Amino acid sequence: MKSREIRLTRHFTGPVLPEYFEIAEIDLPEPGEGEIQVKNVWLSVDPYMRGRMIGIKTYVDPFQVGAPMEGGAVGQVVSSKAEGFAEGDWVMSMYGWREGWTAPTAGVTKIDADLLPPEAYLGVAGLTGMTAYVGIKEMIGLKPGETLWMSAGAGAVGSAGIQFAKAMGAHVIATAGGGEKTAFCTELGADAVVDYKAVDDLGAAVRAAAEPLGGIDAYFENVGGDHLQAALDSLKPHGRMAVCGMIARYNDDAPSPGPSNLTQIVAKKLTLRGFIVSDHFDVYSDFVSDLSGWMMAGKVKTRDTVFEGIEKAPEAFMGLFTGANIGKMLVKL
Amino acid sequence: MKSREIRLTRHFTGPVLPEYFEIAEIDLPEPGEGEIQVKNVWLSVDPYMRGRMIGIKTYVDPFQVGAPMEGGAVGQVVSSKAEGFAEGDWVMSMYGWREGWTAPTAGVTKIDADLLPPEAYLGVAGLTGMTAYVGIKEMIGLKPGETLWMSAGAGAVGSAGIQFAKAMGAHVIATAGGGEKTAFCTELGADAVVDYKAVDDLGAAVRAAAEPLGGIDAYFENVGGDHLQAALDSLKPHGRMAVCGMIARYNDDAPSPGPSNLTQIVAKKLTLRGFIVSDHFDVYSDFVSDLSGWMMAGKVKTRDTVFEGIEKAPEAFMGLFTGANIGKMLVKL
Repeated sequence: MKSREIRLTRHFTGPVLPEYFEIAEIDLPEPGEGEIQVKNVWLSVDPYMRGRMIGIKTYVDPFQVGAPMEGGAVGQVVSSKAEGFAEGDWVMSMYGWREGWTAPTAGVTKIDADLLPPEAYLGVAGLTGMTAYVGIKEMIGLKPGETLWMSAGAGAVGSAGIQFAKAMGAHVIATAGGGEKTAFCTELGADAVVDYKAVDDLGAAVRAAAEPLGGIDAYFENVGGDHLQAALDSLKPHGRMAVCGMIARYNDDAPSPGPSNLTQIVAKKLTLRGFIVSDHFDVYSDFVSDLSGWMMAGKVKTRDTVFEGIEKAPEAFMGLFTGANIGKMLVKL
Repeated sequence: MKSREIRLTRHFTGPVLPEYFEIAEIDLPEPGEGEIQVKNVWLSVDPYMRGRMIGIKTYVDPFQVGAPMEGGAVGQVVSSKAEGFAEGDWVMSMYGWREGWTAPTAGVTKIDADLLPPEAYLGVAGLTGMTAYVGIKEMIGLKPGETLWMSAGAGAVGSAGIQFAKAMGAHVIATAGGGEKTAFCTELGADAVVDYKAVDDLGAAVRAAAEPLGGIDAYFENVGGDHLQAALDSLKPHGRMAVCGMIARYNDDAPSPGPSNLTQIVAKKLTLRGFIVSDHFDVYSDFVSDLSGWMMAGKVKTRDTVFEGIEKAPEAFMGLFTGANIGKMLVKL
């Protein structure tokens, strides 16, 4: 079987450009003993991958220049020499950014494509949903009746988070950019939605929206920049912040100044907790259990933005930084 | 009895100027039923007071323009019409910035001047020491064998914190400005001391000092600005930060940008916790118990910087922002 794959041509800072990616075709080897060959069907592109393109080790190793990149993927087994894996089985792996692969089964998980659509395992039922869950439940410790401000509410993590927080009995103010995204947040159950592109003073707009709900107890940070500044100004005393990402900062060419109001951390006795989902697999079974319940109760909807074909993967990835996605950004092969 | 007192002439942002203070003399009334008259002997000046001069409610009300300011003070009862208070008793109150006062005894605490020098109740055995204790024990949860970076190590909170952390079995890297202050940090038991005025790259210098100790697990933030930036770059993954104050920022005329490396909060999964000591009186008895033990074991030294005379209180206060104090800044009457 032939497989096309996307490779990184260089490490870089600053905006993501198409020439940093190249496509190559290889012949996949037949599986050896203990290996399987898989045809990928869905690939995930995620903001955290930007950090792996810089070439400096952060919490994960950088992508290797010239080698196929890695990322979440689901696909079907084509041939198997590994126990417990048969042709036609659906599997999830980190062998993304490629049409197929042959590898041992370590780190490969079988998924139940009858229970959920296979692509959901890259979204709400996968690391994306788990990220929202860990941020809300473990980092913030959101309680029923409290009010959460979910930034990037129409994004993959944000759209899961709005629904999880509502299912937990909390109120949610969502922010998103533009009418289609704000409408999606409303559809997901957000109590109030602010279009950050349509307001002059984001903090004032969010505080006004939160006032009938008693103010903002917690903030889920996906954005950085002006959103972080507004959140520091808007949280109530003893407010908590889960710091999941700061996508507005990832493509900075040069270091860009942070908010000027960090003294609010002292004045309002705030707690900010950065986190990475992979540190929290100890709550995975809680997540699955809660999520199953919410899904059976019809409390969780999903929506994906889908690009088709392996050659579109870089474009899908670049779209994360221009707000091209509503819900989870996926590539279908 | 006559009493001179310091009053605020206006609310202000930006640098503290002498003309923002005026001195006035009043006749103290004789104590009525349930009241005492006290002659203050020691006054505390503290960085947090700067926030009360802005005129905006933060976690405490602003000082009233034209009225005597408030602050920690210890003094002796001159005459009493309140049960439990007799002439000559030592008391601690928030009636600072004045030579004497007549008031009811609510909020006034009798102190044991045989156990400790009375001024210690404004320093290591008072809110200053308690602030260091809460930051290290409650906010950071410092464990034996871990390494703490204490900023402003020669300051009131910092000098207490270095000794408390050492007494708890942790390692301490202290930063301070200039040879006299760094020598004081060493005398207090810091494992390594960095003179921030003498290095080009504060983070690199602190990391180098911390390397033999296994790196920096926690940071005690008193400074802000370049110190905060360096701390975000220097903490180990899962590092914790107690955010006690950011004195470098308090006199900003206009909002000043924050650190450019806040994405480290995500990349290194850091926790930042702002706090105010008055939220944590539930640990006061633990503090007193631990402190007594450490003092009896000779593990806690104190040093004060003393200005004499009520008219010097504004100068003492302004000195906090120019680094004029080693240890606790006090005014002796």
